[in-house]
Amino acid sequence: MESGKYTKDIREVKQPALEKEILKRLDDLTKPPGSLGRLEDFVVQYCLCRGDSNARIKNTRLVTFAGDHGITEEKITPYPREVTVQMVSNMLAGGAAISVMCRNAGIESWIVDIGTCGEYPDHPALLKKKIARGTRNFLNAPAMTEEECDDALEVGYKIGSEKACDLFGIGEMGIGNSSSASALFSLLLDIDPEQTVGEGTGSRGKLFEHKKSVIARSVDFHRKEWDGTAFDALRRLGGFEIAGMTGLILAAAGSRIPVVVDGFIASAAALVAIKMEKKVTEYLFFSHASGEKFHKGFLAIIGKKPILDLDMRLGEGTGAALAMQIIMQALNCYHQMATFSSAGVSNAD
Amino acid sequence: MESGKYTKDIREVKQPALEKEILKRLDDLTKPPGSLGRLEDFVVQYCLCRGDSNARIKNTRLVTFAGDHGITEEKITPYPREVTVQMVSNMLAGGAAISVMCRNAGIESWIVDIGTCGEYPDHPALLKKKIARGTRNFLNAPAMTEEECDDALEVGYKIGSEKACDLFGIGEMGIGNSSSASALFSLLLDIDPEQTVGEGTGSRGKLFEHKKSVIARSVDFHRKEWDGTAFDALRRLGGFEIAGMTGLILAAAGSRIPVVVDGFIASAAALVAIKMEKKVTEYLFFSHASGEKFHKGFLAIIGKKPILDLDMRLGEGTGAALAMQIIMQALNCYHQMATFSSAGVSNAD
Repeated sequence: MESGKYTKDIREVKQPALEKEILKRLDDLTKPPGSLGRLEDFVVQYCLCRGDSNARIKNTRLVTFAGDHGITEEKITPYPREVTVQMVSNMLAGGAAISVMCRNAGIESWIVDIGTCGEYPDHPALLKKKIARGTRNFLNAPAMTEEECDDALEVGYKIGSEKACDLFGIGEMGIGNSSSASALFSLLLDIDPEQTVGEGTGSRGKLFEHKKSVIARSVDFHRKEWDGTAFDALRRLGGFEIAGMTGLILAAAGSRIPVVVDGFIASAAALVAIKMEKKVTEYLFFSHASGEKFHKGFLAIIGKKPILDLDMRLGEGTGAALAMQIIMQALNCYHQMATFSSAGVSNAD
Repeated sequence: MESGKYTKDIREVKQPALEKEILKRLDDLTKPPGSLGRLEDFVVQYCLCRGDSNARIKNTRLVTFAGDHGITEEKITPYPREVTVQMVSNMLAGGAAISVMCRNAGIESWIVDIGTCGEYPDHPALLKKKIARGTRNFLNAPAMTEEECDDALEVGYKIGSEKACDLFGIGEMGIGNSSSASALFSLLLDIDPEQTVGEGTGSRGKLFEHKKSVIARSVDFHRKEWDGTAFDALRRLGGFEIAGMTGLILAAAGSRIPVVVDGFIASAAALVAIKMEKKVTEYLFFSHASGEKFHKGFLAIIGKKPILDLDMRLGEGTGAALAMQIIMQALNCYHQMATFSSAGVSNAD
């Protein structure tokens, strides 16, 4: 992958004059200064990302990337691999948690088959962008070829370049992908898998010990051959859906569109994007602290506070959908509240 | 007030057979068991309160009680007392934060003038239930007569008895009422005002020290004459809007309708209700950890975990409105998600 291919358009979010303007407007709303707490921070971050003190959220889109993982051959999860495909069908039928949440919140839900082992009938919410039927088992070989990994980044990048959207959410579906995410965290942050591996969808007891061992061996194997770049880490230990989310983040940031990152696995994609271009960080909202073990640790490392902390660990984008509703309410207040002068309300002495 | 007048209909929430049924249904939804985290707890609590494993949220109502406080004579807040009336008008005009949030979330917003110093034109969202034009200064005398306090409880009780609502939210508006809430926490929990008094809407520096001193003296005065009941504490140190919220909570619990409690001041009303009847506790959702100092301490004392923690300290019901959206999404998932069998999704091995 050529250097800067996906990162060259990403600018600094920091704009002191603009920030002052946004804060002034926030303080003129009929409420004690700062009393909307972090909702006011969300307004500032959102408007700074957009480079516009009058930025509005009109079109929201939650993109769920789905892909299968060769590492499931090592039996690291209690769910059969077929569940990825079954759950994509469930999402298209509107029966998955993410479908329900988006439908009720007025968020457009897109599903991207970027590398599952199944085929689906045409559906308006489905993007058929399959790179391959699952990645390779990364225990002893890279999960993707360089070309496959670049193609997956490109798929996400194209989706994230869509200017008609003002706020993206990202989520994923892929049996085995908490293993992939833990391996990426371990390699990119140089942290022992003992700390980064959690139970995922339900790997407990012996299965959990086995999962940790498989990931530890995988990370050991790849550490030796890794060229030190985020791209090479991604293609070795990532998945198509993780690469897709990374591509979306990079494109959205390049177009100044903030992205709400779901949980543990989406955060691994965020980490890859941040390692490619640090300026990306300020375009990201971290929706929630996942129930998955290492997630709070990761958020602390990158210095980001999640919006919610509800012990959710479902993925799909469900935490992102809830957080998007809160960000939208913050912007609603910013645009629709009266000001002290317009409402004839006395300010503090 | 006759004993049991507002509490006699309140039943235990605990129903083991019903809980088993709700959990079984949750585990049959297409997600790993427990992966919706606290959203699943919200479903269980909601359905248990309603006594129905198939309970649905159709009509939500957020009631903002507004009242003025005689203690403002002691200059314990930077905002002039007139702001209470101005903000009620702002709410009726749709320009307050709570108006914006409810409008966008599909929550019905009711404003109750239960004791402000103003008059308002008729408005479909306004309930004119004024007991008096503000309470008395509680520094050296009870804020309300027994009759006034009972009348205020009755106003809230009637509103909370409205069966057409499936989920209530409560909030308040009243310049000076964080002082009233802190005084109530101190008297009812026997905690030094040094711990219960915070900055409220913006009492900082010397003003903060003065506020603490006023409340400490007030609590000292009333502790000597207090008869030890929650009702007597309420009439001595509370406000009309706090009594209104307490009445609503008691009625809603008696009708098995859960109530989402806003922040610091609404929590003082919740504490009064709990002291009147402990079984009330399980009918309450605590929406958020307020930025106001003692709030997290209070939640820890009663063993309740807030839904959100966003440093909000605006009141009006704004935290409750956001939390209601999350509870609604939890119930949406419960009712609208596919089951493993219906969606043809394989379960864990």
